[in-house]
Amino acid sequence: MGLLVVGSIAFDSVKTPFGEAEEVLGGSATYFSVSASYFTDVSLVAVVGEDFPEKHINFLKMRNIDTKGLERKKGRTFRWKGQYGYDLNEAHTLNTELNVFEHFKPQLPEEYKEAEVVFLANIDPDLQRDVLEQVKNPKIVAADTMNFWIEGKKDSLLKTLKMVDILIINDGEARQLAGEPNLIKAARQILSYGPKTLIIKRGEYGVLMFNGRSIFSAPAYPLENVFDPTGAGDTFAGGFMGYLANTMDFSEPAMRRATVMGSVMASFNVEDFSLNKIRHLEYHEIESRYREFKRLSHFEDI
Amino acid sequence: MGLLVVGSIAFDSVKTPFGEAEEVLGGSATYFSVSASYFTDVSLVAVVGEDFPEKHINFLKMRNIDTKGLERKKGRTFRWKGQYGYDLNEAHTLNTELNVFEHFKPQLPEEYKEAEVVFLANIDPDLQRDVLEQVKNPKIVAADTMNFWIEGKKDSLLKTLKMVDILIINDGEARQLAGEPNLIKAARQILSYGPKTLIIKRGEYGVLMFNGRSIFSAPAYPLENVFDPTGAGDTFAGGFMGYLANTMDFSEPAMRRATVMGSVMASFNVEDFSLNKIRHLEYHEIESRYREFKRLSHFEDI
Repeated sequence: MGLLVVGSIAFDSVKTPFGEAEEVLGGSATYFSVSASYFTDVSLVAVVGEDFPEKHINFLKMRNIDTKGLERKKGRTFRWKGQYGYDLNEAHTLNTELNVFEHFKPQLPEEYKEAEVVFLANIDPDLQRDVLEQVKNPKIVAADTMNFWIEGKKDSLLKTLKMVDILIINDGEARQLAGEPNLIKAARQILSYGPKTLIIKRGEYGVLMFNGRSIFSAPAYPLENVFDPTGAGDTFAGGFMGYLANTMDFSEPAMRRATVMGSVMASFNVEDFSLNKIRHLEYHEIESRYREFKRLSHFEDI
Repeated sequence: MGLLVVGSIAFDSVKTPFGEAEEVLGGSATYFSVSASYFTDVSLVAVVGEDFPEKHINFLKMRNIDTKGLERKKGRTFRWKGQYGYDLNEAHTLNTELNVFEHFKPQLPEEYKEAEVVFLANIDPDLQRDVLEQVKNPKIVAADTMNFWIEGKKDSLLKTLKMVDILIINDGEARQLAGEPNLIKAARQILSYGPKTLIIKRGEYGVLMFNGRSIFSAPAYPLENVFDPTGAGDTFAGGFMGYLANTMDFSEPAMRRATVMGSVMASFNVEDFSLNKIRHLEYHEIESRYREFKRLSHFEDI
């Protein structure tokens, strides 16, 4: 069976220099699953409150996402409020309401325990391990994290990293996690914590992938109109892991293609608020943008 | 005949988080010509003072750079003093002494007027046109500029841009010149000023090339030890223009290869202070790093 993800489902309120959106569908698990759903079957583990409308769940189901692991609990759904300046690379959090997410204790449905590919979105590293320990025999495990856990739960995070094959974080997080400003040195340090592959997202500057033997630099798609970068990282991870789960090829060339596929999905996502742009893509649009990434970065040997 | 460059020769005093250098050889024309000299014959137009040691001129000659256009004038050589923080992308100028550069009025030796490829390094746009008007029939002209001329001599700069095929500037300069924060929109604006090709240097994030039909994104070489970014832009331009002058192929694939070649040369240059690293490269080192750029950015079609 396919790709298991655990993470958040949220209502986001976002302000960018180009507009704002109030209480729209968001959350790491949401962006991840919708993005991955273009490539593989996704099993979702998350929690929502009583206020979460059925239409959103129906949308996930319509994208063929298995929602058996989606708990509905008494209380309100997780809420995040953030703002971006003209430098769209960094979100400024204005408010976080954990609500039902505060006491989230994910229990995997029986069949989820057979998952071969697992993505631990950015949640408490204790929870990441709780989930992972319920999966019987995962073939490949990837994780995300953030400054909050790097500062507040480093020991637990390091325990999780020992169990993870691929870590997917941004450049600021990589520097902070390694305590090293140079990204190449930081990458070497982080690979010594356990992961065999480190993917560093650099927003409008693309993505670097390190595996200890080589470095891959994927460009970002040059966009004239970036409306809202919220969820770009999780959408990247969804495209990346979805592509890998689809092919079950974890060779370096496959990981490179997956990195570009993640970048393709993220490039769509930032073109509109919430998941508006990635709700209804046609697969040929995805293939066509992949080819644009190829044209963008291709040059001949001398 | 080959590649003509007009620009500055300077003594630089530079401080970076990794060390400092006092009164070392620098200047846009110096970095440019030495970098280009690995690919083609270079004719140098510049001015130095009485204090400029013969050994530096001998070094340029040894690199096969034609110094007939190098004037020696009464007074002191141009001096620049600058500093970089941990973000090595931006230089903070501490002091500039124009000295003999202040009344520089370049007169081309007769044979220089036959130049087919011309690079106007970052000098007063009036001077850039003065030089260009002395060249009889240039086939391709590239130029650099900086915030000082964008702010203080925009009209003159726009006149120069009408005569230029390729503009090579950094991202901050591109945004300032176009008055537009989005680089794609800024590029379109700048191409409307005259240049057919715009190259935007983004320091550790690589280079973008725009020609109105397509965009090329070249990666930067991930370096563990960047000692001194001084001259990286001119070294890039030297590799780029030197490669073009060598092949006289100005097709898009050739311009892409030239962009990578410029990036290769710049990646060497930042590994040491002054021109120390690019003084004595072997051509096979250059080819080998070009292949590393290829490996760094290669991915397959899906």
